[in-house]
Amino acid sequence: MNACIVAVGSELLTPFRVDTNSLIITERLNTIGVDVRLKTVVGDDVDELARVLTSALGNADLVVCTGGLGPTEDDITRDAVARVLERPLELHETIVDSIRSRFAKRGLTMPEINRRQAMVPRGAAVLENVNGTAPGLWLEHGRTRVLLLPGPPREMTPILEAVVRDRLAPATAGAGLFRRVLRIAGRAESDIDSRAQPVYGQWTSRPIPISTTILAVLGQIELHLTAAAPNRAVADEALDAAMAELQEVLGSSIYSTDGRQLEAVVGDLLRGAGWTIAAAESCTGGLLTSRLTDVPGSSDYVAASVVCYSNATKVDWLNIPEALIAEHGAVSEPVGRAMAEGIRARAGTNVGLGVTGIAGPGGGTPEKPVGTVVVAVVTDRDTRVRTFQFFGSREQVKYQSAQAAMNMLRLMMTGRI
Amino acid sequence: MNACIVAVGSELLTPFRVDTNSLIITERLNTIGVDVRLKTVVGDDVDELARVLTSALGNADLVVCTGGLGPTEDDITRDAVARVLERPLELHETIVDSIRSRFAKRGLTMPEINRRQAMVPRGAAVLENVNGTAPGLWLEHGRTRVLLLPGPPREMTPILEAVVRDRLAPATAGAGLFRRVLRIAGRAESDIDSRAQPVYGQWTSRPIPISTTILAVLGQIELHLTAAAPNRAVADEALDAAMAELQEVLGSSIYSTDGRQLEAVVGDLLRGAGWTIAAAESCTGGLLTSRLTDVPGSSDYVAASVVCYSNATKVDWLNIPEALIAEHGAVSEPVGRAMAEGIRARAGTNVGLGVTGIAGPGGGTPEKPVGTVVVAVVTDRDTRVRTFQFFGSREQVKYQSAQAAMNMLRLMMTGRI
Repeated sequence: MNACIVAVGSELLTPFRVDTNSLIITERLNTIGVDVRLKTVVGDDVDELARVLTSALGNADLVVCTGGLGPTEDDITRDAVARVLERPLELHETIVDSIRSRFAKRGLTMPEINRRQAMVPRGAAVLENVNGTAPGLWLEHGRTRVLLLPGPPREMTPILEAVVRDRLAPATAGAGLFRRVLRIAGRAESDIDSRAQPVYGQWTSRPIPISTTILAVLGQIELHLTAAAPNRAVADEALDAAMAELQEVLGSSIYSTDGRQLEAVVGDLLRGAGWTIAAAESCTGGLLTSRLTDVPGSSDYVAASVVCYSNATKVDWLNIPEALIAEHGAVSEPVGRAMAEGIRARAGTNVGLGVTGIAGPGGGTPEKPVGTVVVAVVTDRDTRVRTFQFFGSREQVKYQSAQAAMNMLRLMMTGRI
Repeated sequence: MNACIVAVGSELLTPFRVDTNSLIITERLNTIGVDVRLKTVVGDDVDELARVLTSALGNADLVVCTGGLGPTEDDITRDAVARVLERPLELHETIVDSIRSRFAKRGLTMPEINRRQAMVPRGAAVLENVNGTAPGLWLEHGRTRVLLLPGPPREMTPILEAVVRDRLAPATAGAGLFRRVLRIAGRAESDIDSRAQPVYGQWTSRPIPISTTILAVLGQIELHLTAAAPNRAVADEALDAAMAELQEVLGSSIYSTDGRQLEAVVGDLLRGAGWTIAAAESCTGGLLTSRLTDVPGSSDYVAASVVCYSNATKVDWLNIPEALIAEHGAVSEPVGRAMAEGIRARAGTNVGLGVTGIAGPGGGTPEKPVGTVVVAVVTDRDTRVRTFQFFGSREQVKYQSAQAAMNMLRLMMTGRI
């Protein structure tokens, strides 16, 4: 079954609001195998909504509308649906009664305007809204089902769940779309795709088809695998096999297959080794340690860090010889290494990280352009120092630098470099 | 002129991602009076996208597509547009050369697959992408204009801006929607709205109508004012008057009326005073300093910071008496103050910030629940220490703590507390 989601509301066409209801709806529909093929946002305009609904009815098995069920003249979803499905709107006195008693419970009289919310296209099933005045509505139009939900998530979600449970799931017998996310650091999207595509390209024609989306996020690549399967056990088997194939071609650049972010993966490695960590950050300005400490329980292994923005603090706090900075410059492999060694000695940890670079937009030179970043990792076992060239804004250079430092440590701790 | 925005990418039809590009596009189009009537999200499916484009071409003066211009087989925007507009795709060797030189700059060879990005529907104008390999494309089809933009915001935005400036704005004679954003820290949304609503509620019926949206973002409130005006000068006059009315009721809780974030506002205050700053961060784990150093040029006033996660580093690095921690606990006003004083002395700066608290999810007690955070600010002139109770996830507590520290410093430096 495939679905189209229509979010109704002029505020969703301003620069300030995104439609997030569709994420909740997609999640619930996916679990029972309903594929969301299209999402549309339309304003409080009955003609425009009627046009969108007409097109959706022709192309989807299920049309889910959210919003536009309020009591004001702006709320046009009922009217548009009635027009498109050519059904008259009828006043349901039971809905009026229920809205009236809702107001009464708060000691208020129902405003006349709320009677609009009791107007129902002929033949629709009324879905109780436990958290608001506008009921949901369920209609069948030929082979297409139409579900109208109120906009506020607190009102929408319980109605959606009841519909999924009582009306949609019984038709699917446990079938659904089952997902895995695989995360990769330290490689370019085109590089990953040229290796992975020959593998995942085969999967769509298998008995349990798996579709794959490649997503380049700052400092990492994600592969989203989605299996359409009759039940979870079958899906898991197919996804496990698929993941193993990808691991063969992508190897150690995969850092997570279970949804964990890089900071959590590194945290688990440190915890497993019983190691502590400290960082000397220059161009990352504290971001690296902030990300390490985003992980609950990270105080078990993060001891301390220094942000040494000035050369004076590099010398004074980390015992880096002034002559070393004078000779090689603050952004250099010898200084990066001395920062990692210095913080490790100073904090008495198993791991020391040093990051120094030019985050920009100023400060670049022909030899060391903006985005030049030195990452040094010193552990109880060994030392690695590498110079990177990153691109992007100041914040993007900072993020990629933190990512590179954590990924180097991960590769060292797992014996990959 | 009215517009339809189409975001392309299967990842935008998962429960994990929303289309945020359309917010940037809407904002830019609104400034020149272009009304966004419809937004659609479609997956990497050439038939579905062709259907959406066909419908959009019939209903909008301008169709803006983002995404699907990458080098992989998933990237189907060029193909769908070529099909719908019935124009053949042609390889532009100049684009190939420019992509190849982009790779060469990083010492890489262009993968063959990237040649796909040089395929252009006949008659399209090629729009330079300074931040990536996929150029934008501009087509005219009867009365409808079609703009194709790459998905990554960093690549999309400069192309969009050039198109608005060079191709769209000249047709609008300066009329449009003109916006101001006013940012507020340290107050609750309901408190702000109850003061501001009686003021902004009057504005919609003025000769130059101004609509107002209140938006609660983590750690701050934003008021977005939108004036519909025949030109910028008229809009500015109306908006200046409106802003003055709001400043009267909201006072010093407004930290920015010109788009600057709090870290930039604080940075400008420090630079203006010729002061330097250092922080001792416990629960924020480096986030406070990372945000301060997100501002270009912040190395002029950020000297250094320490993240002292363990009590040992608080004692050892900041000269905090062990007895003080033993007596009051690490999360206490005396310890927060000693951290701020300690880092200020250690780094030799004009300002010292100390932040200590319980970010959660563990570590709370009945007396000091998760979200208890002490912020201390010590400057050349005075000292303030305050205990906050924040709510939300670990990351949200960290963010609000950093926000509170910067806002306290702002209020002190402007003589408001």
